[in-house]
Amino acid sequence: MPIESRRAGRHFLQIPGPTPIPERILNAMSRQMLDHRGPEFQEFATRLLASVKTLFKTSNPVVIFPSSGTGAWEAGLVNTLSPGDRILVVETGQFAVLWRNMAAKLGLKPEVLANDWHAGADANAVEARLKADKGHDIKAVCIVHNETSTGARTWIDEIRKAMDAVHHPALLMVDAVSSLAVMDYRHDEWGVDVAVAGSQKGLMLPPGLSLTAVSDKALAASKTARLPRSYWSWNEMIGMNANGFFPYTPPTGHLFGLAESIAMLMEEGLDTVFARHERLAEAVRCAVRAWGLEIWCRDPRSYSPAVMVVTMPDALNADQFRKLVLETFNMSLGTGLNKLAGKAFRIGHLGDTNELTVLGALAGVEMGLELAGIPHQKGGVGAAMAHLTETARPATAEAA
Amino acid sequence: MPIESRRAGRHFLQIPGPTPIPERILNAMSRQMLDHRGPEFQEFATRLLASVKTLFKTSNPVVIFPSSGTGAWEAGLVNTLSPGDRILVVETGQFAVLWRNMAAKLGLKPEVLANDWHAGADANAVEARLKADKGHDIKAVCIVHNETSTGARTWIDEIRKAMDAVHHPALLMVDAVSSLAVMDYRHDEWGVDVAVAGSQKGLMLPPGLSLTAVSDKALAASKTARLPRSYWSWNEMIGMNANGFFPYTPPTGHLFGLAESIAMLMEEGLDTVFARHERLAEAVRCAVRAWGLEIWCRDPRSYSPAVMVVTMPDALNADQFRKLVLETFNMSLGTGLNKLAGKAFRIGHLGDTNELTVLGALAGVEMGLELAGIPHQKGGVGAAMAHLTETARPATAEAA
Amino acid sequence: MPIESRRAGRHFLQIPGPTPIPERILNAMSRQMLDHRGPEFQEFATRLLASVKTLFKTSNPVVIFPSSGTGAWEAGLVNTLSPGDRILVVETGQFAVLWRNMAAKLGLKPEVLANDWHAGADANAVEARLKADKGHDIKAVCIVHNETSTGARTWIDEIRKAMDAVHHPALLMVDAVSSLAVMDYRHDEWGVDVAVAGSQKGLMLPPGLSLTAVSDKALAASKTARLPRSYWSWNEMIGMNANGFFPYTPPTGHLFGLAESIAMLMEEGLDTVFARHERLAEAVRCAVRAWGLEIWCRDPRSYSPAVMVVTMPDALNADQFRKLVLETFNMSLGTGLNKLAGKAFRIGHLGDTNELTVLGALAGVEMGLELAGIPHQKGGVGAAMAHLTETARPATAEAA
Amino acid sequence: MPIESRRAGRHFLQIPGPTPIPERILNAMSRQMLDHRGPEFQEFATRLLASVKTLFKTSNPVVIFPSSGTGAWEAGLVNTLSPGDRILVVETGQFAVLWRNMAAKLGLKPEVLANDWHAGADANAVEARLKADKGHDIKAVCIVHNETSTGARTWIDEIRKAMDAVHHPALLMVDAVSSLAVMDYRHDEWGVDVAVAGSQKGLMLPPGLSLTAVSDKALAASKTARLPRSYWSWNEMIGMNANGFFPYTPPTGHLFGLAESIAMLMEEGLDTVFARHERLAEAVRCAVRAWGLEIWCRDPRSYSPAVMVVTMPDALNADQFRKLVLETFNMSLGTGLNKLAGKAFRIGHLGDTNELTVLGALAGVEMGLELAGIPHQKGGVGAAMAHLTETARPATAEAA
Repeated sequence: MPIESRRAGRHFLQIPGPTPIPERILNAMSRQMLDHRGPEFQEFATRLLASVKTLFKTSNPVVIFPSSGTGAWEAGLVNTLSPGDRILVVETGQFAVLWRNMAAKLGLKPEVLANDWHAGADANAVEARLKADKGHDIKAVCIVHNETSTGARTWIDEIRKAMDAVHHPALLMVDAVSSLAVMDYRHDEWGVDVAVAGSQKGLMLPPGLSLTAVSDKALAASKTARLPRSYWSWNEMIGMNANGFFPYTPPTGHLFGLAESIAMLMEEGLDTVFARHERLAEAVRCAVRAWGLEIWCRDPRSYSPAVMVVTMPDALNADQFRKLVLETFNMSLGTGLNKLAGKAFRIGHLGDTNELTVLGALAGVEMGLELAGIPHQKGGVGAAMAHLTETARPATAEAA
Repeated sequence: MPIESRRAGRHFLQIPGPTPIPERILNAMSRQMLDHRGPEFQEFATRLLASVKTLFKTSNPVVIFPSSGTGAWEAGLVNTLSPGDRILVVETGQFAVLWRNMAAKLGLKPEVLANDWHAGADANAVEARLKADKGHDIKAVCIVHNETSTGARTWIDEIRKAMDAVHHPALLMVDAVSSLAVMDYRHDEWGVDVAVAGSQKGLMLPPGLSLTAVSDKALAASKTARLPRSYWSWNEMIGMNANGFFPYTPPTGHLFGLAESIAMLMEEGLDTVFARHERLAEAVRCAVRAWGLEIWCRDPRSYSPAVMVVTMPDALNADQFRKLVLETFNMSLGTGLNKLAGKAFRIGHLGDTNELTVLGALAGVEMGLELAGIPHQKGGVGAAMAHLTETARPATAEAA
Repeated sequence: MPIESRRAGRHFLQIPGPTPIPERILNAMSRQMLDHRGPEFQEFATRLLASVKTLFKTSNPVVIFPSSGTGAWEAGLVNTLSPGDRILVVETGQFAVLWRNMAAKLGLKPEVLANDWHAGADANAVEARLKADKGHDIKAVCIVHNETSTGARTWIDEIRKAMDAVHHPALLMVDAVSSLAVMDYRHDEWGVDVAVAGSQKGLMLPPGLSLTAVSDKALAASKTARLPRSYWSWNEMIGMNANGFFPYTPPTGHLFGLAESIAMLMEEGLDTVFARHERLAEAVRCAVRAWGLEIWCRDPRSYSPAVMVVTMPDALNADQFRKLVLETFNMSLGTGLNKLAGKAFRIGHLGDTNELTVLGALAGVEMGLELAGIPHQKGGVGAAMAHLTETARPATAEAA
Repeated sequence: MPIESRRAGRHFLQIPGPTPIPERILNAMSRQMLDHRGPEFQEFATRLLASVKTLFKTSNPVVIFPSSGTGAWEAGLVNTLSPGDRILVVETGQFAVLWRNMAAKLGLKPEVLANDWHAGADANAVEARLKADKGHDIKAVCIVHNETSTGARTWIDEIRKAMDAVHHPALLMVDAVSSLAVMDYRHDEWGVDVAVAGSQKGLMLPPGLSLTAVSDKALAASKTARLPRSYWSWNEMIGMNANGFFPYTPPTGHLFGLAESIAMLMEEGLDTVFARHERLAEAVRCAVRAWGLEIWCRDPRSYSPAVMVVTMPDALNADQFRKLVLETFNMSLGTGLNKLAGKAFRIGHLGDTNELTVLGALAGVEMGLELAGIPHQKGGVGAAMAHLTETARPATAEAA
């Protein structure tokens, strides 16, 4: 393999996705193809398409595209909207910006609702804006569930309540790319219309597969929406899926992996998965606080269980720090995006990870801070350890 | 793995794609992800994006999407055309029909040029139609290089000549999905503007990756084309690719596989790859002729080196035959598509295959014909063996 | 990988072992190690050691060594015998010769009972020899169940009857290396004392693991046997195995593979596995007869379901033929061993194989015969196909 | 896979072998077999057998058995010694005890030279004992290079000097199982006669393969040695190896892995590999000292770069602690062996590992100590980090 250089031991991939792929998934994907129009595939796909609904907590169809998560965004827009439609994008961070940009390119009129990048979406502001929209010009409200650029989550149920409070009929669209299988997501209960996710985050798969959960209302909208669409057509996909098939060649390898991913998540239990992420996230926050560095997200209710964004002290370059950490300790940290470029680094702690991996990663950050001469207090790793020790499962604590 | 049932030995996957994945590629893909914004990825992607051009014989960029080949079709249309543009689709078979349908859905005006489904595209008819298009209303001519539904190839250089003969400025778009790395394709020399391919045919990868070669003329068209696009935007992709990056998360695993695929094709040599396919295809034709069955493609110049479409005798159901072969001999044959549904079966002999595999497959067909009570002559396998023996490489024949 | 050269398509590995490894087994083995002294391993090993007994149809322990099958031979001898002990080895072929040689090196007195290499062991001759051994000097009778050098099987139950007929107390030792999971083997019912097998034949694993089934009588013999032993000590192994552990580091990867192998064999059903081998073997014989070549094994009752040994016409070199086939058709055939060196080639058709693979292999042989100018009749593949068609499962024949 | 239970994230396998297997090696081993009597194998094996010598720094043959490292011990004894021969085993720990026991079982007269288990072998004591052996009754001196039971290394060059000082002709046999590719080993320069190693330690492979380096003197001894041997015969092995073949079926998969292992070690550079282990070992010692726990090995010159043995405070059970760590933090620590059973635990830090992995492991130990209520000081991880920071490569420290 030309791209391998010999760094001993495991690379610590601590970006907020792609996340490390478990061996079980690598092996599940490392198989021969089969006839995607044959009975074995049909049976497999039928079962898979049913089980994938549990991830979104929906009883509606979930659409799977061979695409990145970005493709599912596009599908969400072109299936439900018409040229010139106004949509409201709450600017929680870079991924909201990108979503807005996409909408503009597709011929929609995205309106940006400014939002504090240090927190999740402000439900009150959404409510106020929608209340002002007497004519119901706004056809969709777009919210990023977990902003990987800022490390801030939005409480989707609050957005739903805000929309309901003013009886606004807009579709609620949620970017769940880095939240699905990381933090709780309840498609049907929260009344989300379109939720999009990608394979390379909580699902622990390589990138290249997107998932979209759709509500009846979104499906109804797709009957009259006039943006052109073919590849992204939900109706064709759902129609073929009903028989276990796909309108064009499905990404068989990724589907094998997805089946294994779902099996693993169910074995662990979704609630356990969520609790694991929350606990690890708090450990990371303990470390950052101990270092005396700034957690970019300033609203504790918005703290992301998936990723930590750490602001660098003034005038220090976060990317140089990341480079040092990569070269010295064989760890990839996430880069700062948009207005955080060069000013922050990100620690991904989502997907198939655990206490000792996160502590190893924090140790790499703490040593990197020292080597880079960045002002900080020592003891971050120790603080994280203290949290993890305190919250260790009692059953095992008894074992000694 | 829930989808495995225990059939002994190797499944013979003789559909015209996905094709069997070589072990080297499975292993190359079975690795951990890396930071797609880091230096290792950048170096890898830069090298890959350069080497992939050799497959198309182009010096222009090749665009890689996380999508099926169908997605690359859509990209080709939306990057170069505007709503209401007329395009000419030569109806060589089902994949031409699907392309036409896509164009209609995207708001184009596809005009179908009828063509004998028993042959490749008729260059004279193309020339005549373009000559009649005095106003140059036709903005693109869409040709399927290898029609996997009919087993007929089109000689792209002849189409180019036909267009040049009448000095028609339309873009030449080629579906090379099942031809790339199977039969000769010369993007620059033939003056093709857009050529699209998928990962799961000659490239021997799982489905989920598309490749698009673009000409300067196509890139120029993209500056003024008005169909909305975001995910599929070539310009953004090519812009980011120039630095070894991608506008959204790239399908890292597939890219690892593609690098290995290209390495393997270069080791064998593209001309050797093409000659291998031609030789195996002729062996399959020898078998079909010996059986007394009909090769659907009636024009020998159009014979596909990738896939054989065999017409069933009247009133016999090809899908029942395929089912019998699958259940009895653990082999998947391709189904008849569109007007051939139930009336023909297809034998894929493309990708990572060789003499003995093809002969095993032909033996399965011949035994299946017998078991199904389908009128035929025996001796198909023998005829194929005779051809392969006669054409065996002399160097090795000397070895005895 | 330095050893890969690019030959397109799948290599046909038609030697009588190692046999092709199914993808499921490759994946089962492609995992991280675990603590071989920890609870997870203990549970795994306990279950595995129980299930492996079903392969031998024994309720006694099966001993697993990290070694080739040859190592299990050595273990069988050193655990049960004392220096100078006489053993009777029936010379059915090269593997009997090697066994004899090993016994001599270990300080035993092996007596060779001549046997027709064109057949399995002659039970009458065994009976006669044992009858003559009034003093019961002979401590063990060594029989190769399936002689891979000659393609001849021995009916072990007949040997047992011969021994019982003369009430001889010698241990019955069976080399089941290439018979286990290929043809029926009944350790307890047949009263075998020591049976040895290897991983790389019917078990479809890489070489490197041996299995030994032992009777109570063999275990009793081990209490007084005086040949020195340490690594090969059954008692230590069985003692540790009782708790799910091993006296030295066990070959974890191979054990993972063995568990998957057993699962696959049970899914197919041992009787189905045996019937599959018999049917494929008869197809191969049909081919050889049609070619007019000689099946080395002349006794139909002794025909091996695992391997076919084909005698070359006089003065033609079998190894040159094998070389031609390898270079021209990417297929490995087995070489002739001992007195068959250069005079015969072998076609392995055991392990994870099926009709179409065997037919592809036979086609390679038939084309090779033609290219090598070896006198033969055509039609071997056709004859094999006829047999396989006639014996195809009726359930599926109905499907058409 | 039945043995998988769902623990999120990577298991920390911190036993002193088997060690974590790098992805490159898993993939190199995950391939089809080939004909072990054919030309491709021959070429591969010839190259491998040459390159493996570099690991031992020898120009003599290295013998590869399908066996655990224990098998190579047995081979070393039976190839060079005769029944009743006296050998001197320096009792540095449990593996010396096992070696002694093996020798006794094989009919040798092992004499144990008592040694402080808190240190490596005492060269002066060896010299004194050999000096007393005027009649040269002692035929071999057996030394464990790295005692994984005690975490103590022996300086083999000093043993050589001790032997030379008294001109004693005994063979020098070295157990390099857990030292090869971990710390410097110089077969020829140090005048070692027999050195044995296993695949599952520094070589980063699954267990099941042993390697033995032999001197001319050892080979000469094998000509007259009278212990019975067959499987373990060096002469047969070396004779066949000369042509790239093996006397019985070689463990092809392991050999593929070994080739990749050697490639990786050469890419990193053996001296870099050794320095990496030393540096990580010192970091672990910093942690243990900071905790106020006892490093079992009391002689700093004997500190092992491969494994740390930590003594538990009185009356506390080390295995209960290990169980707690396994269940709470998904990490396997090594158990105490022999007189350390229950009184010590071991931290393996050898093979394919790095700073962050070791720090994650130390964090798991430190948290476990807390949860188990074991008296200790906090700050072990911090002390390890301090060491690793101080010793980080300056080139990268400059990068910030």
